[in-house]
Amino acid sequence: MLHGNAVVGQSGGPTSVINQSLVGVIREVRKHNQIEQLLGARHGVRGVINDDFIPLNDVSDELLNRIAITPAAALGSTRDKPDQAYCEKIFRSFERHNVRFFFYIGGNDSADTARLVNDLARQAGHELRTFHIPKTIDNDLRVHDHTPGYGSAAKFVVSAIMGDNYDNLSLQGIKVDVIMGRHAGFLTAASVLARQHEEDGPHLIYVPEAPLSEEKFLGDVDRVYKKHNRCLIAVSEGIVVPGGKTWAERMEEGKMERDSHGNIQLSGSGALGDYLSGLIKAKLGSKLRVRADTFGYLQRSFPGLVSDVDAKEARMVGEMAVRYSMDETNLEGSVAMKRVSEKPYEVKTFLTPLSTVARETKHMPAEFIEGGNNITAAFCDYARPLVGELPRVGSFEELRR
Amino acid sequence: MLHGNAVVGQSGGPTSVINQSLVGVIREVRKHNQIEQLLGARHGVRGVINDDFIPLNDVSDELLNRIAITPAAALGSTRDKPDQAYCEKIFRSFERHNVRFFFYIGGNDSADTARLVNDLARQAGHELRTFHIPKTIDNDLRVHDHTPGYGSAAKFVVSAIMGDNYDNLSLQGIKVDVIMGRHAGFLTAASVLARQHEEDGPHLIYVPEAPLSEEKFLGDVDRVYKKHNRCLIAVSEGIVVPGGKTWAERMEEGKMERDSHGNIQLSGSGALGDYLSGLIKAKLGSKLRVRADTFGYLQRSFPGLVSDVDAKEARMVGEMAVRYSMDETNLEGSVAMKRVSEKPYEVKTFLTPLSTVARETKHMPAEFIEGGNNITAAFCDYARPLVGELPRVGSFEELRR
Repeated sequence: MLHGNAVVGQSGGPTSVINQSLVGVIREVRKHNQIEQLLGARHGVRGVINDDFIPLNDVSDELLNRIAITPAAALGSTRDKPDQAYCEKIFRSFERHNVRFFFYIGGNDSADTARLVNDLARQAGHELRTFHIPKTIDNDLRVHDHTPGYGSAAKFVVSAIMGDNYDNLSLQGIKVDVIMGRHAGFLTAASVLARQHEEDGPHLIYVPEAPLSEEKFLGDVDRVYKKHNRCLIAVSEGIVVPGGKTWAERMEEGKMERDSHGNIQLSGSGALGDYLSGLIKAKLGSKLRVRADTFGYLQRSFPGLVSDVDAKEARMVGEMAVRYSMDETNLEGSVAMKRVSEKPYEVKTFLTPLSTVARETKHMPAEFIEGGNNITAAFCDYARPLVGELPRVGSFEELRR
Repeated sequence: MLHGNAVVGQSGGPTSVINQSLVGVIREVRKHNQIEQLLGARHGVRGVINDDFIPLNDVSDELLNRIAITPAAALGSTRDKPDQAYCEKIFRSFERHNVRFFFYIGGNDSADTARLVNDLARQAGHELRTFHIPKTIDNDLRVHDHTPGYGSAAKFVVSAIMGDNYDNLSLQGIKVDVIMGRHAGFLTAASVLARQHEEDGPHLIYVPEAPLSEEKFLGDVDRVYKKHNRCLIAVSEGIVVPGGKTWAERMEEGKMERDSHGNIQLSGSGALGDYLSGLIKAKLGSKLRVRADTFGYLQRSFPGLVSDVDAKEARMVGEMAVRYSMDETNLEGSVAMKRVSEKPYEVKTFLTPLSTVARETKHMPAEFIEGGNNITAAFCDYARPLVGELPRVGSFEELRR
């Protein structure tokens, strides 16, 4: 039976529940004496190559309970994307520390790192079991039905849009809300769940999977504004123009009709939102009340606002990674979820080879998108159980219905 | 005894609890038969002059319960600031509808409108009782200890900054968070409550009351970044340069060293945040990881995230306005709160003349500000009970302490 130490690390953009997965690993490891020391790598693989570890065997339950509900990566995260040479350093660190179990919490890049390190270990004849634990607010991992982190970020987006719909009803005008998602529109699409009545916003939803021209955008806004005397727009930061370039790239090139202000940076910047509101004013009327908010990092790291389902599943995939690792037939894999029942919603985990998840991302399927500016009921069925309970709001508009 | 109809309206920027005050009025009115019809003015005084009212006597409790927890103004709001002629139209509408009680929920401008209308009624010998019900996330009403709406917006800001502190710890860099508040820094100051340990952010807090030069800003950021290898900055949208102009005005004038991109709009725009992050990169190093988020309208209209104390007090001032109006010695006033006990926190309402609240705003007192970039313990004592419970987060950093 394989005995040795284990390393756990966190990578990529934080989420509100990534620490649930970490605590899942820590708690489950304590039940299995095949694992001696559990080392937490600070800032992911960077901690591995720098021998920067936090010993996790004896952390108190009291602290673990608080860390579990704390957003962002408690071990620290990294944006490093290791190449072959970097992965060799990781592997050598594993040899030095007699690491036999590697649990890496992250997205598709992290799955790829895990795969590379795992291959090196095989080649060297160093017995290592490598598991990828999914995490991404983008929900863009192949094979996985959905990923931990998405449900809570989606709950933030739905809540924010729901509130903004009422704000927009109070003081009418045109409002642009820019939502994270460079390549996949799942998070922006979730905004559709904020709609409770026909006239509720978001009135227009744009995702990167549906190319959007300036003409279509302006035509849509004009039509909605004329109908409702207001317009609430949810737009992915990664929207593209027909032909495949992103709006941000076009803004940088100065080919859109208004100049941008220096370098365009999608997250941590209001540039796209300000560009879109400027465009609306320039083309549809300078006296219109147009505002833009970019939800930014709040979407992924907001304490006290998680989806219960998401928190529970994030914990579960962490625990399951450890359990899978105890079975000698499981040498490597990504811990994925599949739905075994729709009503009631129920999932099971399974192990999928790292190579099936690594690198490439998943996009929104065509049946989730409608007319290039809307999201379908099929998506709502898919996403609703992941987001969970929402506030039961109300409006005097209901009196007229 | 005065008998007649009543009008209730909502004005100015929405809050998360302004509808609690409205529901407080509606519920309390039902207990007093001096008021016959209760008319909800749609979009504030605009609804009054346009005879656009919602009859509120028979709205079901089920709907009222949902509206109470719904952010933004359920009756619709307005930015109209009535002059004398506009107020005469309001008064004439009151005469037409036999309105004897006027409840106006809003900030200092709304108090001023109420005052003007009240004076007209006095002059015309039309018996009218006029009450201002406070609401503003800016917390800037004179005489009032604090205002409903502030506690919930502050809770949003504290939560967001707390999460962003952990996000910034995960992926180190410099982060600028722009918070609402054109003239008063109370909301930005609340970010200080996110600090749980000495090294926690926000490391720098800038409010409009403490003028800030570009040199001081950059010097502060540089010092913090060198010490912590990261820096989290909370900044009011209304910060000013020494001499009194706002940074936004200076950006517009092009006197700051980087050009802005068209018209500067403080709320509903990422312009100030992007300007500050651009400034840091230009002066402290273009390779620094610098990001900016502008919290925008989410601060004032986020469902499911209210301060319990704030929600309760918002309801209370609505109810009390109606109760005060039943006493013939109370002809007019703004329903204010004062603290009668610090521990346990306890407030009482009192009536202050409309003229004492109208027009001018309150600023942060000097004892709440420290060194031009920090907020004092005295402020924390003031604000903590208004914000209420926060998530009990945790960090592995605690193991080193």
